[in-house]
Amino acid sequence: MTKLSAKRIKEIIARMPFNNLVGIKLARVYPDGLSLECQVKPELLNGAGILHGGVTATLADAAVGLAVIRHFNGTRKITTVELKVNYFRPIVTGKVTAQARLRRIGNHLSVGQVDIFDADKNLAGIAIVTYMLL
Amino acid sequence: MTKLSAKRIKEIIARMPFNNLVGIKLARVYPDGLSLECQVKPELLNGAGILHGGVTATLADAAVGLAVIRHFNGTRKITTVELKVNYFRPIVTGKVTAQARLRRIGNHLSVGQVDIFDADKNLAGIAIVTYMLL
Amino acid sequence: MTKLSAKRIKEIIARMPFNNLVGIKLARVYPDGLSLECQVKPELLNGAGILHGGVTATLADAAVGLAVIRHFNGTRKITTVELKVNYFRPIVTGKVTAQARLRRIGNHLSVGQVDIFDADKNLAGIAIVTYMLL
Amino acid sequence: MTKLSAKRIKEIIARMPFNNLVGIKLARVYPDGLSLECQVKPELLNGAGILHGGVTATLADAAVGLAVIRHFNGTRKITTVELKVNYFRPIVTGKVTAQARLRRIGNHLSVGQVDIFDADKNLAGIAIVTYMLL
Repeated sequence: MTKLSAKRIKEIIARMPFNNLVGIKLARVYPDGLSLECQVKPELLNGAGILHGGVTATLADAAVGLAVIRHFNGTRKITTVELKVNYFRPIVTGKVTAQARLRRIGNHLSVGQVDIFDADKNLAGIAIVTYMLL
Repeated sequence: MTKLSAKRIKEIIARMPFNNLVGIKLARVYPDGLSLECQVKPELLNGAGILHGGVTATLADAAVGLAVIRHFNGTRKITTVELKVNYFRPIVTGKVTAQARLRRIGNHLSVGQVDIFDADKNLAGIAIVTYMLL
Repeated sequence: MTKLSAKRIKEIIARMPFNNLVGIKLARVYPDGLSLECQVKPELLNGAGILHGGVTATLADAAVGLAVIRHFNGTRKITTVELKVNYFRPIVTGKVTAQARLRRIGNHLSVGQVDIFDADKNLAGIAIVTYMLL
Repeated sequence: MTKLSAKRIKEIIARMPFNNLVGIKLARVYPDGLSLECQVKPELLNGAGILHGGVTATLADAAVGLAVIRHFNGTRKITTVELKVNYFRPIVTGKVTAQARLRRIGNHLSVGQVDIFDADKNLAGIAIVTYMLL
């Protein structure tokens, strides 16, 4: 099946208000997924001066969602049904990257696995996100 | 042990940049937890016009984190180690509320459970968040 | 809608091989769920002499599954799609109880929350289990 | 650091009662993890005639636990703090394999990711398991 081009994914991201507020951009596309990135900015930090866990969750959610949208060539409406993130190390500066790979593609449920990296390519966390196809 | 007052928690939230960007406010405190709320605004939506899953995750993360900070009377530094959200129904407008209850309070790990409600008090999701005390 | 009786649920459990191997029994039924129990036996322990995490996961999975089967009065086939357990304290002896409550009942997905108690009624863990209706 | 040999891991498994009840065996060791396998037997099934979700959870829990024990060369006591499994397809017969890879090795918490395969090497599920080092 044809998959959405990187150009088309960027246009879709441009119409996603919260992803724009956070500053999420497409980094790369892969055969079985894609990666998003976001620059750590003061407004994304928590009270301890490190990246808020909600930002990492947002990146993971968006990365798997866009990977599913791309896989189905933009023809399916989807909604997150479940999301889980393990946080391994604090992120304080630079670019954070969420690399999503689809592990199960179903007609009802699709599941992606995410590796989250800090600017030095340290593994900062992992996630699993499940989407339902409507 | 003394717990932080609602006034003190509001001051702490005021110094949390990402929670402010999202517009998170303290709603209530309970003996074993607290609830946060946030007004759905256009910039918090995803591409389908519903509240981004990352916002719900941010609320859940913040609610448990603040409940832990409060429990230890602001004396402990903490960091999220794990977060899981189940999404039950889309939220499109009004106030979303995350009600966190601490289920385990440990010297190393503390775990809270969260019920997420939409403006009509429908259960919109549930979450479990684990914090490590540093 | 009519819900299965406790007697009927016990008959269903009697035809579940792995639940029988573990020794799972119905403890109580509630309006929105049910609880299962199981006696800690030497063969359910791990190498450290405490209840194996897989036993607790089995109890949580079974408790939510039976609560869903009961809710739909035994008319629907179901399968676990996702399971998550947080372990709070080791269990070494006595009866372990898993109390499941359905939090979302959908035509496609149903989600239950579980509290796991040791013989002294200490909260030993919590779980969330998602079932798909086939 | 020296890691436990396959022979030593087999001896450790032989002293784990519940893993023996289920019939779990070491399949392979890898630089960053190991895989366990188990033969589907009638007593491991649920009421629908497919492998009970609790067996898969047991395999995932055991695979990460043994990978952590091996990594620390058998010198550390550990306990599961959190476990999450996504189930992709039913398993009805043959050998099920759980391949665990450690993704974070910490002094307090270690986290492993697991791929679960059926006898035909289809991906039947994925898991993330967190252990605390005591």
